[in-house]
Formats: sequence, C-alpha cells, structure tokens
Amino acid sequence: MKTREVHLKARPQGWPTPEDFAVVEAELAPPGDGEVLVRNLFMSVDPYMRGRMNDVKSYAPPYRLDEVMYGGAVGEVVESRSPDLAEGDVVLHQSGWREHAKGPAKRFRKVAPIEGVSFSVYLGALGMTALTAYVGLLDIAGMRDGDTVFVSGAAGAVGSIAGQIARQRGAARVVGSAGSDEKVAYLTDRLGFDAAFNYKSGPVRRQLAQAAPDGIDVYFDNVGGDHLEAAIGALRQGGRAALCGAISSYNATEPPPGPRNLGLLVSRRLTLKGFIVSDHNDRYPDFVREMGGWLRDGKITFEETVVDGIDNAVDAFLAMLRGENLGKMIVRL
Amino acid sequence: MKTREVHLKARPQGWPTPEDFAVVEAELAPPGDGEVLVRNLFMSVDPYMRGRMNDVKSYAPPYRLDEVMYGGAVGEVVESRSPDLAEGDVVLHQSGWREHAKGPAKRFRKVAPIEGVSFSVYLGALGMTALTAYVGLLDIAGMRDGDTVFVSGAAGAVGSIAGQIARQRGAARVVGSAGSDEKVAYLTDRLGFDAAFNYKSGPVRRQLAQAAPDGIDVYFDNVGGDHLEAAIGALRQGGRAALCGAISSYNATEPPPGPRNLGLLVSRRLTLKGFIVSDHNDRYPDFVREMGGWLRDGKITFEETVVDGIDNAVDAFLAMLRGENLGKMIVRL
Repeated sequence: MKTREVHLKARPQGWPTPEDFAVVEAELAPPGDGEVLVRNLFMSVDPYMRGRMNDVKSYAPPYRLDEVMYGGAVGEVVESRSPDLAEGDVVLHQSGWREHAKGPAKRFRKVAPIEGVSFSVYLGALGMTALTAYVGLLDIAGMRDGDTVFVSGAAGAVGSIAGQIARQRGAARVVGSAGSDEKVAYLTDRLGFDAAFNYKSGPVRRQLAQAAPDGIDVYFDNVGGDHLEAAIGALRQGGRAALCGAISSYNATEPPPGPRNLGLLVSRRLTLKGFIVSDHNDRYPDFVREMGGWLRDGKITFEETVVDGIDNAVDAFLAMLRGENLGKMIVRL
Repeated sequence: MKTREVHLKARPQGWPTPEDFAVVEAELAPPGDGEVLVRNLFMSVDPYMRGRMNDVKSYAPPYRLDEVMYGGAVGEVVESRSPDLAEGDVVLHQSGWREHAKGPAKRFRKVAPIEGVSFSVYLGALGMTALTAYVGLLDIAGMRDGDTVFVSGAAGAVGSIAGQIARQRGAARVVGSAGSDEKVAYLTDRLGFDAAFNYKSGPVRRQLAQAAPDGIDVYFDNVGGDHLEAAIGALRQGGRAALCGAISSYNATEPPPGPRNLGLLVSRRLTLKGFIVSDHNDRYPDFVREMGGWLRDGKITFEETVVDGIDNAVDAFLAMLRGENLGKMIVRL
C-alpha cells in the first residue's frame, strides 16, 4: 500500500526552513508475523526534535538524512498479525512523522479511551511532555509544599503542566513566563498561575523580581539563556533548578553567553540539574495515577493547538519552535 | 593587658592591598565569669575571607570596617574562669586575626594533641578546609567507587585533601590542576594524583582532555571560570560537580563570563551543586573518624605553608590569594 511520511532533506543551520524537509510517498509492505499496521491519528511535534536534526551525538542518535523522522504518535490498529493487539485498538508509539506505522506489536502500547477527551491527550497531558513536567518538578527539582515556583515557557506543553502540578502539590506561589500577552492571560486566568509576564516586554530579571518579589525556591527551565540567569539570581538559599531544555538556544548558530552569576550557587547553596525524561519511565505509573486523578477531577486544564494533515506537519513544528502554540502542539493526521 | 589584632581599614576594590588592613594594639580586660583567655598559636587565612571583606550580604555577614576580623584559630588557654576549660588546654575557635582571644568557654573547643603533628592540623587536614573537601566530594558530588575525579586548585588546602580522599575512596583516576609546575609535581609525586597540569601553561579544556581523555564523573571546583566550563565539557553522563568556591572571581571587578555549555547539563544529565561547609557540621564526627584513620596510617599527606607573626598575617593572606601556598596556609603567632 501507499503511505506518506516526512523526511529530513538537509540539516538545518540555525532556524529550520520548510526546504529542509519533504513529504514523501512510500510503499508499505503488509505486516509480517507478530507485526501490526497502524493508521496514525495524531503525531507530536516537540522542541527536542530540533536537536535530532543536527549531526551531533546527543542523548539520542540524530535523524538520518533522506529518511523518515520519528517521534510520539497515537494511531489505530488497522491490521494485526499479533495476538497482543486487535484491529481497532488505539496505541501509543514512537513512529510519528508518517501516516501509517508498522512494526512488532511490542513497540505499540494500547491506551484506554477517556470519556470526553481526545486520544491526543496521550501525547500531551498524559504523555511524555506531562511526564517531563512531573519528573522535573517533583524528582529533579524536589518541589516541596510551600515553595515558590517559577516556570519559563509556561504556556507550552511542558510548562503549562509543570505550573499546574506545582499548584496541586502545594506551591505557595506559581509564576510563569510566556512569549505573548495572550499567553500570559491564559496562565493567570485559566491555569491558576499567581503571576505571569511576557518575556518580550522587558528584561526577565526585572519582571521576575516583580512577579516573585521574595525570590523563588524552584525554577523549571524550558528556555535557558537570560531566563536561567534571572532565575539563578532569584533563587533563595537551597534553591533548585530543573533544566529540561533551552529552546532559546536550539536554533542558535553561536553558543549563547552563559549565566554570569554562578557564584551564587555556592553562597546560596543552589543546585542546577539537567534531566531527560526517558531516564525516568519508571515514574510513569505514579504519574498516570496522580495526573489521571487530577484530570478526572478537573483540577488540571490543558490546551492543544491542533494542525491538520501531514502536509502541514513541518509548519506545525516550525510554529511550535517560534512559540505560536498554546499548550501542546498536535498534528491530526 | 595589651594585645594586637588585625583590622579591616578599607573594603578592597578588586585585589586587596596591604593598605586595606592594619595591625592595631588593643587593650584586653581580664576574662569575666565563665570566660577564658586564649593565647593564639596558629590562625588560618582562607579564600572565603575575601568575600567577607565586601559589603554585601552573603552566607556570612561582612567584616566590619575598623574592627578586628575573625576566622579559624588554635590557641592555648592561659586563664580560665570556666570549669569547662583549664589553663594549658589547646582549643580550636573562630577568633583568629588576633594574638589573644577571649570569650565564653563554649566558643572554644578543646582538641587533643596528635603525636608528631602540629596543632595547626586542626586548621587544615583535621579542620574546616579538609571537612570541606570531605563533604563536597562525598556528599555534594556523591563520588562513587570507580569514578574519575577532577579537582581544580588541587595543591591548595581544600583541593589537596579532596584529591587524596578520592583516591582513598576508590576513584579510578584522580586529576588535578594547579598554578605552577612545582605544584603539579607535588600532586603527582607526593599526593598520588594520576595526572595533573599547570593551568597557566595552556587552555584548561585542552589540558583536561589530555589528562582525562575518557572524561570525568566528578568535578570538585575551587576555581570557577574557564575551569568550570572545561569541566562541564568533560563530564560524562550523570556527572556531578561540587562547587566550593571560585577563587578566580573573588578579586574580579566585573562578573566573569559564564560557561557557554550549560546545554550539556540537559543532554548529559549533569548536576552542579554549590555548598557551604558550615551547613554540614553534623558530618564532623564521621570526617574525624575516617580522616584521623587515614592520617594515622600515613595514607593522606598534607603540607602547610607557615608564615610567622601577626605582622605578616596580611601578607600570608594575600600570598594565599595569589596561590603562593602549597597546601594549607597557616600563620604562626
């Protein structure tokens, strides 16, 4: 059968352009013994994918040129040659960036429908991005009851969940930054942040000092750069920062200047800790139990920005890098 | 009675000069009820004292202008009006920078003589600087058997002990940096470092790559600046840096540039953690037990650079900031 998939055609220098990608028609043989064929319903576009477009060894191997990329996706089994999955099952897997996925059944995890909620939730509020928020806030930064928490990129897929988990877990004050006034309003009006600011409206350091005049205990970093320097300056004694990624640097062609105030790590006994969510998959059951409860009880809100069709997947990815999404950016296939 | 003490006369801008200090004659009243009078035998000069000369709130209040400074010292009780201490007892305390100390007996801790070892050991290998090495390496950086460990400023009071503790605790490889070829030879020939380099002889990054070609697991930072950036670049997955202080910046009038490679904290899951030894006094008994055993068994070597007389105390402090000491800088009074 014929299907379509997105290839990486050139390694981007700085900001990617549509010409670095191509939607390619491909021939797919029927599934072999033990395999399933899945029609993808939704695929994820995430900041970490930018790193995989570079030809550098990182925590995951780079995407290959002229081959299909990959990433999180949810699909429906349309043909099964495995006893473990049946036609009609909906599955979560890593063969995104394509209309159909095929492979051994064990690479596909069956997910349960949730009443009134799209299956795309398994790419967002019950998916890898929300697990990132959960692990980063609770395990890496060790957030405690009564902490003041600052989340950068707080209207994005990870940040919007991190701020809300902080609230549910007893943070005294939750502060967020985002890249537009509309997002700032979303944080305070819809997600229950105590304060938020538009980092394009003025220096982060000054705006953070206004939003958290007594300083912060925990910083959840999605942005890096001047956000990280400002957060270090605001951290109180014993403060902890979970470093999740630095979207501000992903398309930089020069290394950005580092924070000039690392001396504060000593005098204030601060900790900066980077992490990769895939090291923490053992926390998934705890996460699903706790997050599932919050979602069921309406205590956590999530937003998706949905783009239709594989022809628009690259545009969705680029828009996400520019920060045009509110909550999780999803491509519906 | 008359005694002499060292006052801070002016807050240094950048590098301190002798004119920022004065040795002043002072009148000391006899000890009151519950107090002791101590004749100081040795006093400590340490890098952290530079920070206390600035008028900024840090983890300790700044020294006051035109008053006596303070710091670790060992002395002999010459008059006691407390049942807790007797004349002739040797005590460790925080009233250094003066020839005599006086105060409530509880501020003075009696120390035992160790055969063949000067009482100044309680300012060095059994003192605060060695406890700093112990806590930083084992608790903050969490050094494990088989780790490759890099210590900067490794010929100094803290670094020389940190490297040797790493060796005793099963490090696979111990690497150090120091500021002269003589110190480098001391590290490899006397202290058992596997490799060492003179950071004035070339870029730290390149020399560290030669000394630890497979990377490092633990970095003990006494220097900051380009040492920290080079160490971050060398840390392997899950690596940990204990930040103890950054002598490279203490006399800087401009904030030094920060490390440009903090993105590695995420991809390699690295941790940077600052600490202050006074938060960890509960580890003193473990430290004394373990370090005392190593010293007794001749497994840990230490060096002191001894300067005589309170008139030379400021010169000793300045020489220590310039790195002219080997091991612990001590003033004998």
